Amino acid sequence: MEAIKTKAYGAKASLIDSLSRLSRMDIERNSPKEDEVLIDILYCGVCHSDLHQVRNDWANTVYPCIPGHEIVGKVAQAGNAVTKFQVGDVVGVGCMIDSCGKCSSCQEGEENYCEGPVSWTATYNGYMKPNGNGFNTFGGYSTSIVVKESFVLRIPDALDAKRAAPILCAGVTTYSPLRHWNVKEGDKVGIVGIGGLGHMAVQLAKAMGAQVTAITRSEEKRGAAQALGAHEVLIEDDKAAMTAHELAFDMLLITIPDPFDVSAYVNLLKKNGSLVTVGLLGKYKSPLNNMDVAMHRRSVAGSIIGSIAETQEVLDFCAEHAIMPEVELIAMKDINNAFSRMMDDNVRFRFVIDMQTLKDEH
Amino acid sequence: MEAIKTKAYGAKASLIDSLSRLSRMDIERNSPKEDEVLIDILYCGVCHSDLHQVRNDWANTVYPCIPGHEIVGKVAQAGNAVTKFQVGDVVGVGCMIDSCGKCSSCQEGEENYCEGPVSWTATYNGYMKPNGNGFNTFGGYSTSIVVKESFVLRIPDALDAKRAAPILCAGVTTYSPLRHWNVKEGDKVGIVGIGGLGHMAVQLAKAMGAQVTAITRSEEKRGAAQALGAHEVLIEDDKAAMTAHELAFDMLLITIPDPFDVSAYVNLLKKNGSLVTVGLLGKYKSPLNNMDVAMHRRSVAGSIIGSIAETQEVLDFCAEHAIMPEVELIAMKDINNAFSRMMDDNVRFRFVIDMQTLKDEH
Repeated sequence: MEAIKTKAYGAKASLIDSLSRLSRMDIERNSPKEDEVLIDILYCGVCHSDLHQVRNDWANTVYPCIPGHEIVGKVAQAGNAVTKFQVGDVVGVGCMIDSCGKCSSCQEGEENYCEGPVSWTATYNGYMKPNGNGFNTFGGYSTSIVVKESFVLRIPDALDAKRAAPILCAGVTTYSPLRHWNVKEGDKVGIVGIGGLGHMAVQLAKAMGAQVTAITRSEEKRGAAQALGAHEVLIEDDKAAMTAHELAFDMLLITIPDPFDVSAYVNLLKKNGSLVTVGLLGKYKSPLNNMDVAMHRRSVAGSIIGSIAETQEVLDFCAEHAIMPEVELIAMKDINNAFSRMMDDNVRFRFVIDMQTLKDEH
Repeated sequence: MEAIKTKAYGAKASLIDSLSRLSRMDIERNSPKEDEVLIDILYCGVCHSDLHQVRNDWANTVYPCIPGHEIVGKVAQAGNAVTKFQVGDVVGVGCMIDSCGKCSSCQEGEENYCEGPVSWTATYNGYMKPNGNGFNTFGGYSTSIVVKESFVLRIPDALDAKRAAPILCAGVTTYSPLRHWNVKEGDKVGIVGIGGLGHMAVQLAKAMGAQVTAITRSEEKRGAAQALGAHEVLIEDDKAAMTAHELAFDMLLITIPDPFDVSAYVNLLKKNGSLVTVGLLGKYKSPLNNMDVAMHRRSVAGSIIGSIAETQEVLDFCAEHAIMPEVELIAMKDINNAFSRMMDDNVRFRFVIDMQTLKDEH
């Protein structure tokens, strides 16, 4: 098998400086096996997880670390056994590129809850457990990637390729719990945190028929949240408004990517309501009062990304409902600045890297 | 209306000593109104909540405080409009004697989640909120009580009256979440804490068809838990056994009455599993790691007592399945000693006061 030279941006170590700046690297991809496709990457979204991983916030980063799991590209080559895709197809790759395939979750088509020995294989830093088997994977901050066809998604024609990228993580990560908790016509849903994930969640929940409240610390986001379709905007600093929303929501979807106190939100739930966090907050433990939960039989839950089937579903759902991420296109070389701005919550709402800019680098 | 002289035991204040000893009191009950019955109390169970309330653990106790919400007695008098009960019927009163009747929870027959201005009216200390309307209620540590018929339960003939008492709180408090979370044939259910509530939960979950694991700190309870029908006993100090039970349970029902760290249990849940606490732990907040929850889409929930309909259901269910609380009958005057033993976890599994002993007091 011939190696495929690939340009990439990654972090060589966690301690270069506090931000772990990414720099230009050259890597090799293996030629696609029978059931794999080689994808020429066109666009890659910038997810807050990319920053977590590069900084080693989850204490499991293997360096070099090349992030990127919102990948849109064109099939450049397909193994002999590939049946779903042809050269030239516009395809996507999300957070996973493999899973054990044998556990009950995989058998049920919920690879994102794989219970195999190393869980699912992440698109980058594919090394889910400290005692995993030692492989590493390199993500979409690169010019090409090779992925098993069963983990490759079809990008519907109706979607603009560059804006479709964030659907592959931000989209499915919010779509999956909205579906699992059965959000339906007339439900009152609160979306907490109006960033990359939250701005998708507002659109998705609304398209499912929910009455959507955008909950944010930032008065500046009021207009944008309304433009995304929120029926109402609740500013967290407004204590009176928060109190007035006690017992208001069937579901709260919390997309905050950093440690937060769940207590501030529990009382907003109706009887039988569920609060679902989708950000992964490392070792942080939030204080939780059990009487706040018990008094109205509330639930505090969590959800992680979504299955491959759900990823295809949300791509198709977005195409059908004309839902699109709001993106700001950047050049690969500007990634470190983009990380800084993301930390400052200064992006509306998702950076997407135009990979042509990396191809054009030396 | 003539007042009905009633003997009782209650706490005059929270600060008599650290245990808030109960002492003999004389109170008056109003004659039953049209829709009320006067009940001659035969037995009253001793619940851990009685101790919480007397000690003012929830910072809402109104003194004097006369506890008791597992009441079994005989109808001594019935108002003209009463249709369900006749003089001489063996009846029960649980944790509630009224609710607003108007909110959506009450309309749905879930009075225990009443969202009226002062929530439901507790059988004792019926003063649910600091800004409630100032009434107080006196519970079943007394010779008689007057209750609206819609909050009175029928004790099935098949149940031994003195052993039925704990079903009215310990029974329904565990029955309600087992039903709400739809425990069914073959489900793996862990019952944490094998005391008054836990020993009912083991029997109820087993009768629903679940595979029941009793989870306890106390090796001494192994035999008793097995005798109650637990398929398996897991001792919390056995770290290897705890680790071996990760991802093992569809549901964990936690009956611990004092603050505990929920983290120790979350990882025992399967994908989509729910952990439900039913003890009310005051202002305490447990640390909760959101990744433990999210990685397998687990839920941490709570539940409080049960509805009137569920209370009748669990009484009938116990009669049908020959489930009975294990009780130790005590005299009223021994209540302070019983509280001490309850704090020391030295009761198998529920004290029940024989109210004849109070009638016989001067």
